Amino acid sequence: METYKFDKSYEWFERACKVIPGGVIGHKHPAFTVPGSYPYFASRGEGSHYWDPDGNEFIDWMCGFGPMVLGYNNPVVDAAAQEQAKLGDGMSHPGPISIEYAEMMVKLTKGMDWCVYGKNGADITTWCMRLAREYTGRKKILIVRGAYHGAQAWSTPSYGGIIDEDRTHVHFFEWNNLDSFMELINTYKGQVAGVMMTPYHHCIYADQQMPAPGWWETIGKVCKQEDLILISDDVRAGFRLDMAGSHAYFGYEPDLVCYSKAIANTYPISAGLGTSKLKETAEHVLFTGTFFSSMVPMAASIATVKELKRLDGVNYMMKIGKALCDGLVSVGKSNGFEIIMSGPYDIPFMRFAREKNFMLKQLFSGEAAIRGVIFHPHHNWFTSCAHTEEDVKKSLEVADIAFKKVKDKYGSD
Amino acid sequence: METYKFDKSYEWFERACKVIPGGVIGHKHPAFTVPGSYPYFASRGEGSHYWDPDGNEFIDWMCGFGPMVLGYNNPVVDAAAQEQAKLGDGMSHPGPISIEYAEMMVKLTKGMDWCVYGKNGADITTWCMRLAREYTGRKKILIVRGAYHGAQAWSTPSYGGIIDEDRTHVHFFEWNNLDSFMELINTYKGQVAGVMMTPYHHCIYADQQMPAPGWWETIGKVCKQEDLILISDDVRAGFRLDMAGSHAYFGYEPDLVCYSKAIANTYPISAGLGTSKLKETAEHVLFTGTFFSSMVPMAASIATVKELKRLDGVNYMMKIGKALCDGLVSVGKSNGFEIIMSGPYDIPFMRFAREKNFMLKQLFSGEAAIRGVIFHPHHNWFTSCAHTEEDVKKSLEVADIAFKKVKDKYGSD
Repeated sequence: METYKFDKSYEWFERACKVIPGGVIGHKHPAFTVPGSYPYFASRGEGSHYWDPDGNEFIDWMCGFGPMVLGYNNPVVDAAAQEQAKLGDGMSHPGPISIEYAEMMVKLTKGMDWCVYGKNGADITTWCMRLAREYTGRKKILIVRGAYHGAQAWSTPSYGGIIDEDRTHVHFFEWNNLDSFMELINTYKGQVAGVMMTPYHHCIYADQQMPAPGWWETIGKVCKQEDLILISDDVRAGFRLDMAGSHAYFGYEPDLVCYSKAIANTYPISAGLGTSKLKETAEHVLFTGTFFSSMVPMAASIATVKELKRLDGVNYMMKIGKALCDGLVSVGKSNGFEIIMSGPYDIPFMRFAREKNFMLKQLFSGEAAIRGVIFHPHHNWFTSCAHTEEDVKKSLEVADIAFKKVKDKYGSD
Repeated sequence: METYKFDKSYEWFERACKVIPGGVIGHKHPAFTVPGSYPYFASRGEGSHYWDPDGNEFIDWMCGFGPMVLGYNNPVVDAAAQEQAKLGDGMSHPGPISIEYAEMMVKLTKGMDWCVYGKNGADITTWCMRLAREYTGRKKILIVRGAYHGAQAWSTPSYGGIIDEDRTHVHFFEWNNLDSFMELINTYKGQVAGVMMTPYHHCIYADQQMPAPGWWETIGKVCKQEDLILISDDVRAGFRLDMAGSHAYFGYEPDLVCYSKAIANTYPISAGLGTSKLKETAEHVLFTGTFFSSMVPMAASIATVKELKRLDGVNYMMKIGKALCDGLVSVGKSNGFEIIMSGPYDIPFMRFAREKNFMLKQLFSGEAAIRGVIFHPHHNWFTSCAHTEEDVKKSLEVADIAFKKVKDKYGSD
């Protein structure tokens, strides 16, 4: 099998570095994958595939880091967006579509009574934190160590540009560790405004952790007892576990739910939903931005929800994800490797059982990328409704070669 | 002249209030205009006009609160966006267009060496604040009282959901008041990271203030002496004073420039530009979001810049704005009112000279709105390249009627 070259990507990257700090900003920076074995830019997408500037074609198990659920350039979603674009997008008022959108999201999401719309996931998570503070009159927010709630100063996983005061009242507990949670609850009795958590723990550089039996039940009970606002950050998992919200999937009852990513199949929108007790407070915590009421992404989101329902999308993404995950474990085993797949089938994270430093995983992922299959070495992957059994078959064939390359260099288990 | 009814707007608003806190979030809320005399929603836009759900047509002097500079549904910008959309928008890497975009912005903007891209204006202003802190190792940020830098906790003009720690190191001085600026500089000697300012003072509910002679020169000199990062928040004024940046217009030399709103004619994008001394630091203050690298808004922005240049857009917007502003002063005078227009002609703010509580202005604006002309009662307005002399003529005819209504109720000066 011919392997890919990335000459044009590197040429673009050299140009990029002259005018963009690091050449690519944020989580899509090449240093986060395996520099030298990955494309650095995407030129075109279609369904579950994309093409880089060198003309190489890839099966994309990253789905744009989540937002693509129905395939790049999905004709149904794009047609709905175009229809709205003919009328208008960003104007001096919201459109009636903002109401249809909120009505749809409220009806869709279990236990929620109202909806606001923004651009970034972090617009919503940050506002929800402030809403919890305003409602309770208390300052402290509890979050899980290693959880990602956006790159704002209070929650960024990076170190630059943070001052102590950004986190004076943000406290960390460990996922699935009730003692660490209760220690904060007891230490800061009467001072805690809310708890922000993802539905399951999708950390990076480590196995994902599903909720232990009773975990959510206890969290919910304590939040009710202590009158804390429970915020479900469903930005990453939303629409891949349950269309009614990942809290419906795991059976907990949040006061606020944060959505973005998958809800509009790559169109830029985020949404926050809440229960009626917080509605009046929500009016008093100013939430605004020039593009928050843009109408085209709302039309795209409405179409995305319809399509996901029509296709039974969550089940399909789970099914195709299971085929990929089971296949990787099996192909890994046939090459002498124990492979750990963690997290939901459609948001999976892969690890070689014997390693903790990702040398094997990086080699594996790089060898797959130069053969047209995008597995991320350090971040969870995503499946979509556009991924086919043929994609899985091709991906496993490439994985087989990649496992052999790892065996050649590092030996099997 | 038949006046407009807003029955459908109110019906939609009633529905909206059931599922959206306040019915409309943020700065587009009807309470910010004159409830009862304005449409609450926009259904369709074309050029400088829009239509509400009742089918009423309006000349829009708000331009979507700034982003519309070439007209709603501008065919050139929309075609460029569509061309890019066919290739891809939000994908697993940025597109080569991110580089072309950064190159264009760097070339365009006076004194700037690099560019990053985001979604909201506040994404950029907030990140620039953090960048100044990281670069200097100091905490304090000085801003002008009453300036708007977005609705994040450190800068929101509202009161909800803020804790003391959000602003421990944000200090306020008065526009055009050097003593108040120097007092902060001297009080916090060696502790100030940066100064964030808009090019001129576009407060709300008050006359806009242009920089006094020597103001920017002194600010620049002090920032250099004290080694402070000077951040120009050009989100609102950008592309309406000078395509090279409003700092080029007023002659100051910022270290960082923040853009959003007008740069892509309503497509959602923001951009931050900086000088080379900050480039390495910029790599270490994580700036990221799922939709930051979306390609369609970049294509729209490139097309917007080309069109604004081709049309000599800034001069046109100034010219049409001058016709409107001069006309309003003149029509006001003929009705016995002294009218104060403040700020640039294409970002004007109107006030009745004799009043400070906006009762006259609200009546005036409401009477204009029910006759098809959107003047905002409390916020500055915007002009665009799509506004015509016919729009001005019609607007002044309506203004004449509105002034007479004010005279009937409150008497002339």
